Amino acid sequence: MKEQILIFGLGHIGGSIAKSLCKQGIKVYAEDLSKKTITYAIKNKIIKGTFSNLDLSKPYSVIFSTPPIVTNKLVNENKDLIKNAVLFTETSSSKNKIKKNAFINKIENAILSHPIAGNEGSGIDASDIKLFENKICILSPLKMTSKNSITKAQKLWGSLGSNCIKMDLNSHDKILAATSHLPHVISFSLMRYIEKSSNIKNKVLMGGGLKDFTRISSSDPEMWSDIFDLNKKEILKSIKGFKKELEVMEKNILSSRSKTKNLIAESNKARKKIID
Amino acid sequence: MKEQILIFGLGHIGGSIAKSLCKQGIKVYAEDLSKKTITYAIKNKIIKGTFSNLDLSKPYSVIFSTPPIVTNKLVNENKDLIKNAVLFTETSSSKNKIKKNAFINKIENAILSHPIAGNEGSGIDASDIKLFENKICILSPLKMTSKNSITKAQKLWGSLGSNCIKMDLNSHDKILAATSHLPHVISFSLMRYIEKSSNIKNKVLMGGGLKDFTRISSSDPEMWSDIFDLNKKEILKSIKGFKKELEVMEKNILSSRSKTKNLIAESNKARKKIID
Repeated sequence: MKEQILIFGLGHIGGSIAKSLCKQGIKVYAEDLSKKTITYAIKNKIIKGTFSNLDLSKPYSVIFSTPPIVTNKLVNENKDLIKNAVLFTETSSSKNKIKKNAFINKIENAILSHPIAGNEGSGIDASDIKLFENKICILSPLKMTSKNSITKAQKLWGSLGSNCIKMDLNSHDKILAATSHLPHVISFSLMRYIEKSSNIKNKVLMGGGLKDFTRISSSDPEMWSDIFDLNKKEILKSIKGFKKELEVMEKNILSSRSKTKNLIAESNKARKKIID
Repeated sequence: MKEQILIFGLGHIGGSIAKSLCKQGIKVYAEDLSKKTITYAIKNKIIKGTFSNLDLSKPYSVIFSTPPIVTNKLVNENKDLIKNAVLFTETSSSKNKIKKNAFINKIENAILSHPIAGNEGSGIDASDIKLFENKICILSPLKMTSKNSITKAQKLWGSLGSNCIKMDLNSHDKILAATSHLPHVISFSLMRYIEKSSNIKNKVLMGGGLKDFTRISSSDPEMWSDIFDLNKKEILKSIKGFKKELEVMEKNILSSRSKTKNLIAESNKARKKIID
């Protein structure tokens, strides 16, 4: 990764990429809607400068860490910049709208990245130099993506400490609906239920379990309403599937302690298989 | 807390109480179904001995950290031991069955304790000397509970580092259904859904969010099927209430990005109010 990097969007993800690459001595340039963010990033040596400082005669890669809707707009506005890049990628959690961008599908240096990292934080203040270390990054090549671009993307994420796996976009959106988007829907709903139902006027009754369990309900409304909208079809399927499992639990809690116990034991096993 | 302490059940909670009190120089004795646990606890100076070592001619307190059903049985079998104690308490998450024990209701030294601490671990291996530090402990006095016993219980939990709040048993079971039991039902259901729905054969796709979110789905089946059974009425009410909120999210994800955004913002606020 000797070339220059241009990042659009210096939020939690973009900022963390910038911090890590800059530390490695790579020339990182960035654009962000907020001038304050850019000033902060330059002052704190998170980036070297802005787009205007990029040397277009030398190799560069472009990373979009903007919300998906913004990314589509910016991609259309910066076609030449992207075409001439060594690598073009973006980092959002929902890909199907971006995939439909005909331009992206036609360029050979495009690959979609989804780092399975990040937390409920947002903005450059929440960025973290170690955010991607030992995390998975899903790489989704498009129709025309060259092998060379895949290798370059693997090197980029590798230099950030991530392990890459390749996955087609449909599988990506389906799996993420179940493992990431659905838990967010649940956490938002649970938090609203707890607030409405209980006469809890203070903070005293939240054990560590609930604290962890509702951590993601602090996630950014702008970003998550976007993700829910962009991956609507798969998310609604997931909610339906989850509700069925919830109803199985409900029935057994009502009628059978021993069956409930078996269901819980199955959950224990499932988690061990998938996570531990 | 100069007197002796007798603990029934040296699991995650009982073991943690023993560790902390023993460290403070208090004479802790314990009984557990597992001889291995008792041997381990004596060897590691978590307890000083068993029931047979307790000096019945000197003051002692009795703590039950056994599953609620076992506690009821043991209480009936050890009426004199309990009556003669300075303080009698128990630490389970669901109280309504214990409350109905007529004997407990008639003795003046009884108070029900619920430390809002603990995690998905179980057994003495998961015990932790600092488990109760800076945690809340809910104290639920019964009909006849004397002020003296309340003070003693406050001192006991205070010495473990907890802050006590008093709450009647009905409120306890209602609030815990929403803030602890429901999140467990959800986590168990979600884990089962994820395992069934996704063709995830490995561990790669679980971000930190899901890891935290499903941590409690590793909780003990025996204990949690008991809790669900004991607090059935309130838990089923909570599931119904949660499902309504989930359906509000579902509808808005389908039809309105801006309303979804507002719902998420409300969740953010609710969490901040309750937890941060």
